Amino acid sequence: MRETAIVQHIRKLAESRPQDRSVIRGIGDDCAVLRPRSDEDLAFTSDFVLEGRHFTLETHTAADIGHQALARSLSDLAAMGSEPVFCLVSLAVPAQLGSAWVQRFYKSLLSLAAKYNITLAGGDLARFDKVVADVICCGRVPRGQAILRSGAKPGDRIYVTGTLGAAAHAFGLRHGPLRPEPRIQAGIALHRLGVSAAMDLSDGLSLDLHRLSLESRVSADLESDLPIAPGASLEEALHGGEDYELLFTVSPKKELPKKIAGLPVTQIGTITQGRAGRVYFKGRPLKAKGFDHFR
Amino acid sequence: MRETAIVQHIRKLAESRPQDRSVIRGIGDDCAVLRPRSDEDLAFTSDFVLEGRHFTLETHTAADIGHQALARSLSDLAAMGSEPVFCLVSLAVPAQLGSAWVQRFYKSLLSLAAKYNITLAGGDLARFDKVVADVICCGRVPRGQAILRSGAKPGDRIYVTGTLGAAAHAFGLRHGPLRPEPRIQAGIALHRLGVSAAMDLSDGLSLDLHRLSLESRVSADLESDLPIAPGASLEEALHGGEDYELLFTVSPKKELPKKIAGLPVTQIGTITQGRAGRVYFKGRPLKAKGFDHFR
Repeated sequence: MRETAIVQHIRKLAESRPQDRSVIRGIGDDCAVLRPRSDEDLAFTSDFVLEGRHFTLETHTAADIGHQALARSLSDLAAMGSEPVFCLVSLAVPAQLGSAWVQRFYKSLLSLAAKYNITLAGGDLARFDKVVADVICCGRVPRGQAILRSGAKPGDRIYVTGTLGAAAHAFGLRHGPLRPEPRIQAGIALHRLGVSAAMDLSDGLSLDLHRLSLESRVSADLESDLPIAPGASLEEALHGGEDYELLFTVSPKKELPKKIAGLPVTQIGTITQGRAGRVYFKGRPLKAKGFDHFR
Repeated sequence: MRETAIVQHIRKLAESRPQDRSVIRGIGDDCAVLRPRSDEDLAFTSDFVLEGRHFTLETHTAADIGHQALARSLSDLAAMGSEPVFCLVSLAVPAQLGSAWVQRFYKSLLSLAAKYNITLAGGDLARFDKVVADVICCGRVPRGQAILRSGAKPGDRIYVTGTLGAAAHAFGLRHGPLRPEPRIQAGIALHRLGVSAAMDLSDGLSLDLHRLSLESRVSADLESDLPIAPGASLEEALHGGEDYELLFTVSPKKELPKKIAGLPVTQIGTITQGRAGRVYFKGRPLKAKGFDHFR
């Protein structure tokens, strides 16, 4: 099948799903075109999934990879408290995988897209030695209400959704879960609750909390009682990546419900005045050992 | 150098350039945040550059690749008649290239970015076996004025900017020019002139004109007098890719200047009623032989 035919097939699949009305031009032009609403800010993220890094063709099907590729980007939208609008998908695949593989990738990606009402509006398709996908997501949030990493204040409580360490326990530090579930509803609920800062846990709590504290120019004290996933070790909960849970901070004046969008939330520490980016665990400095591509 | 340190370096470089004021949050959070103006539509594109496909490490420096990666995406913005706003850059590089290579890539990309006032607002950075870059560009255009591929009408004249076949002649069909120049100013001038359709020439005139005609549900008659680049053959002008010129159509009622934004423009044919996507050259059907990743 030629590129044009494959793109036409993907376009038909994409256009058969409910479309976000802001997307006034989708697949089929040089660019997708968005007509923004007057009262919104837009959040943008791009995330690679790379063969051998985030998945292998032995352990992950085309459908797993399509799901994972979109889920990673959606998780970033969730961390801003934004509602998904559209995505662009750049996909490179080896010739031997064929157009059926490409179609299974997109079918799975579009199933997850439909769940969160995100329109596939364009992208790029190419041949390459290995599978590479880069997914760009755009989300909307009421003007001025995106949850940033930089808003944490001394005295704020630190929380996480769900449990920690499950992915590292099941898959090791290199590969992510087959079908991670982005915390979109929880993120939207968090911005409505007015939390002070948030980010998604993709590279491990120790590294990600270091990054949040750095952006907010504060320190963080972690407690010993972490919501460790069943079977996972403390080490996996502290440093394991790919959890796709939300890490957030909230003023001590706010009451939080025990569950947010159906997910349990657990206080795991407190923001303190101190050196920007420093994280303590049981009173001792915690090294940021989470996943670092360049270490 | 660790990922965090490299990202901090890129962030400082990016923030030292003039920023688009619509970008209210750039590098350093889960997402970039844009505050759209009330009277604008936004155009989005993503484009891969892949080692061995669009460049090799033997023929292209880090600076060439950084330039090329952004130029390809900017060329898509130009084709919509839009003004660049921000870009996200996803880059994967092998360990042996080191952080100095990454910095040269970004320095060059940011030089081109500064020329067109586009803010580097985020992206992704990863290790991989080969160099892969995916650049996402966002541009603005006054509401309802994006130039689409689908607007060509029978009777419209077909034009191109500049000359055709230079890249294919110099580099063959596989690799692009070292430092292509996106036609941003020409694209903006075209939307002001009210042309009926446009796209950029990346995969060759025969294939790209087929695509434009398909989207507009028309046929196209090409004349024999093409503006062939010095030294290039007719074959290279008809089917060679990577020219980064603009292909556009305009109503016969409009007078076009001979130069647009300093670039010569040449009429190369006429849009006709007929089977959607059919292209004729000297009266005979022309096969779409341009570059197709999946052929």
